[in-house]
Order: sequence, then C-alpha cells, then structure tokens
Amino acid sequence: MKIAILGGTGSIGEGFALRWAEKHEILLCSREIDKAVSSAGKYTETLLNKGFFCCGITGCKNETAIGDADVVVLSVPYQGVIALLKDLRPYFRDQIVISLVVPMKKNKWFEYTPPKQGSAALEIKEILPETTKVVSAYHNVSAKKLASLEKILDYDVVVCGDDEGAKRTVMELTREIKSLRPLDGGGLASSYMIESLTPFLINLAIRNGLSDLGVKFV
Amino acid sequence: MKIAILGGTGSIGEGFALRWAEKHEILLCSREIDKAVSSAGKYTETLLNKGFFCCGITGCKNETAIGDADVVVLSVPYQGVIALLKDLRPYFRDQIVISLVVPMKKNKWFEYTPPKQGSAALEIKEILPETTKVVSAYHNVSAKKLASLEKILDYDVVVCGDDEGAKRTVMELTREIKSLRPLDGGGLASSYMIESLTPFLINLAIRNGLSDLGVKFV
Repeated sequence: MKIAILGGTGSIGEGFALRWAEKHEILLCSREIDKAVSSAGKYTETLLNKGFFCCGITGCKNETAIGDADVVVLSVPYQGVIALLKDLRPYFRDQIVISLVVPMKKNKWFEYTPPKQGSAALEIKEILPETTKVVSAYHNVSAKKLASLEKILDYDVVVCGDDEGAKRTVMELTREIKSLRPLDGGGLASSYMIESLTPFLINLAIRNGLSDLGVKFV
Repeated sequence: MKIAILGGTGSIGEGFALRWAEKHEILLCSREIDKAVSSAGKYTETLLNKGFFCCGITGCKNETAIGDADVVVLSVPYQGVIALLKDLRPYFRDQIVISLVVPMKKNKWFEYTPPKQGSAALEIKEILPETTKVVSAYHNVSAKKLASLEKILDYDVVVCGDDEGAKRTVMELTREIKSLRPLDGGGLASSYMIESLTPFLINLAIRNGLSDLGVKFV
C-alpha cells in the first residue's frame, strides 16, 4: 500500500515510516519539501544500516502524497490540523485516513479538550469528503518506542471507525508492528475515549515517575 | 483497620472480603442482616478451607458497620447508591470512603452516564459530610478474578482522591492484594476518567471476544 504520513518528520511519523517501510511505500510529508526529502533520506539510511535490503521512503509535499496514497496518517498536532485539512481537502478521495490527533491543553495538568463534535476524529470526518474513511488509532503509542526498532511494543491499540473494511486494514497494519495488538473499539463515536486516554496517561506518568506509558488490556 | 464493605454480599464485595480478611477486620454489610451473616460465614469457611488460620469477617447492618469502620467500601451499583448514602449519612464521620461506583447504562453498547457533578465520586462527596475522605478506585478490577484467591491480578489500579493521606492508605490496601499496582491518579476531579473506562472495557471485551478485562499501563 501507499501510506502518506502527514507530519512525517516528527518522531511518531518517523516511527511509522521505519516500521512500515519494508512492506509498504511510504510517502513522507512535510509542508517543507526539503525537510521531507532530508528525513526520508535519514530514515532510509537507518533502515539500511540495520540490514534491511530495500525500502521505499520518499519525501513528498502533502498535496502530491495525499493524492497518491491509499492510507493517510495524520500524525500532526490538533493545533493546526483542522486548517491544514481544510486546505488539503481537494486532494482527498476515498483514502483511509488514520487520525492520531488528540485535542488537549496543559493547565496544571494535561486536559482533554474535545471539539463540539465530541472528538478530533469526528471533527476531521466532518471536514473531509464523505468518501474518505476516517479511522482513529495509535493515540497512546509512545513515539520514542515506535521509532526504536529494537523496542518491542507490548501495547494494545484500540481502533475506532465507521467503515468496517477500513478498520480491518488499520488493524492489519497494526499487527505488522511487532507485538502491537489491535482491538476493535467500535465506531468513530467511541474515539473520544481513546483520545482522552492520552492526557490521562501523560498525567499518570508524571505523577508516578513513569515514562512513555501505553495501555494493555489484560 | 476496620473495613466496612457495603454491597459485601455481591461478587466484588466477596473479593475484597477474602483478600483483606487476613490483615483487617471486615464488616460485611447488607440491608438484610441475615444475608450479611450468611455470606460472612461462607467467606470465612472459604478462607479456612484454603488454610488461613484466622480471619475476622462479620456480617453487619449498614448503619452499625459504617459507624464502626475506618474505611467504607461502596461496592454497590450506581442505581440506588445515592438514595442509600443519603439515608446513611448520619453514620459517617471521618471515614475513608472508597467509591467503586460507575454510572452507566446499556443501549446497544454500554455508555458512561456521569451525573452533573462530573463523576459518581464527586456526587458522593457532595452527599457525605465534608469530614469524610472520598477516594475513587477499583472500578476496573474483575470481580470474578478478585474473588478467586488463586488468581494473580496483574492489573493497575488508578486511585483518585483529594485527601493525600486517604489516597496513600487506599494505595497501601491495593498493594496488599497480590500483584495489583496502585497508581496515583490525582484528585477526585479525575475520577470520571477511571469510571468511564468501565463501560469502555466491557464494550471492548464484547467486541473482541475477551472477558474480565482490566488495565495495565506499560
């Protein structure tokens, strides 16, 4: 599959590029094409140094990548994502769009601040063409661990989405990342639950001297 | 410590009685004293059969137990707990009150239905005298596993409360149950987060063919 990663030069984007590059064509996106190309080169080098024979990570502009992709990963902060997607709307058709987006703010502690639609995923669904398939996942995967290929990610990933086929594809992509277990979290209406876990996990980590917390349902 | 368990004849109540009886005096409560006494006898027998030498589980009426207790565990359903606590209010002084209460309803799936205060724990705090110390915990511990003494509960228990001393006591009580790890979840205002995990976990279990799900932060 062709997977476009918006915000691909950030650490969670790096993790997905490295983890999926062996089986998929990665279109690494940034608003600045130079940055995208340079990161794509760096990630390719990382993989070659680790003994991977080939991998296709290409630096792209957002517009080109989205138009070309089967799956678009939104690994960008909530601040800015709505305006960005409104601009990029014409390039979306029927892609699977994976939202990792968490609207939150920090006062004394981190707080979940959902938009009026109830969650970032539902707001994003409202902006994009109806033919795209928005799926919500990976909010609680540690960017640092994802980008360290030697790390085993013994986490659960709850996947929410209204299109069963798209949800199954994302669950399959999840299984391709060693040790991650995908769980069906139901429709997109349940996305608030997994989004709101993120600030909760950050607070929990700070309060209890832990770091890079993920979730496992046991 | 003297621990009163309201709803002590239900399965989560049974689990706490069995797990804490070796170190603490358990006041097992029910509205029907006969039922409380009979369950206390049954649990004592279970413990003696498993080789415990002594244990103090006594069947009590709610009123007597609360008045006498250091810690009151509310292992009762949301439906009814508010009316019950309004009735029993005169018997509360400065006890630690552990709320396991989750307001939820079932439509097609389970849904969290918090009261206007934001969570059951905050509503309960509003009803009880200000001198009591409400702590929120154990919402996501499987009643079945808790009541099976041979089961290792490799779960995390997030504990929320506004009184630091009371929170520490509940975290200590949690550590006494083999393998449970208490985590400081902050003030009672964060209780909605752990309460809302319960219907989410039930739905997740149903959707993914799992059972008795708990949470672990890894």
